[in-house]
Amino acid sequence: MTIDDPLVLAEVQAQFDAYERALMADDLPALDALFHDGASTVRYGVGEVLYGIDEIRAFRMGRGGSPQRRLGRVAISAFGPDHALTHAEFFRADSERRGRQTQVWVRFPEGWKIVSAHVSLEGSTS
Amino acid sequence: MTIDDPLVLAEVQAQFDAYERALMADDLPALDALFHDGASTVRYGVGEVLYGIDEIRAFRMGRGGSPQRRLGRVAISAFGPDHALTHAEFFRADSERRGRQTQVWVRFPEGWKIVSAHVSLEGSTS
Repeated sequence: MTIDDPLVLAEVQAQFDAYERALMADDLPALDALFHDGASTVRYGVGEVLYGIDEIRAFRMGRGGSPQRRLGRVAISAFGPDHALTHAEFFRADSERRGRQTQVWVRFPEGWKIVSAHVSLEGSTS
Repeated sequence: MTIDDPLVLAEVQAQFDAYERALMADDLPALDALFHDGASTVRYGVGEVLYGIDEIRAFRMGRGGSPQRRLGRVAISAFGPDHALTHAEFFRADSERRGRQTQVWVRFPEGWKIVSAHVSLEGSTS
């Protein structure tokens, strides 16, 4: 298994960037297209726990957009040609706490999709 | 790509269970053996951001063990024979907030290892 193939990393970086642009623009069709349309897709958000694409879609529809944020450190890794991870720190305009976002990407016949996302704000205890 | 192969799910469930036992016992060698020994391994904890196995080891050595917790809903998925995810809700004895844990597992020649973990407590905002 090839780890961190540069071509795979570049593809996933482009997907990660597209997701960030869509999130900041609250572009719901673009966000939806980047998530895997499956019952096992999970999104743990800062304030919500969502299982399956239906729950994720319903949340996005009612959310009114994400708070604006700037990215900090980003770390991307790939394990084989079809599986990759993006880790990103972020800082919201309305919070001094550091945010952390993990996305798990899988390459399907229709392209790279997020099968799991976990977003949180760093707390004071471990 | 076979999704959610029952044999793969069973293997990863066993690894997940072993990790939980080791965490509750603060069994550092067992915890260490379940994480991928690599510079790209990431652990976002409730109160810390750790890049690479060296930072993760240093944190564990100084932590004095995890708070005790009980598990809630657990959701495991697998994408192909060598890549899997575990999602778990948990509840700590000292907190009323719901915890969420995501682990990304990859099968290496030496066995299944965690290449990324994200642990957080649910917040009040999204």
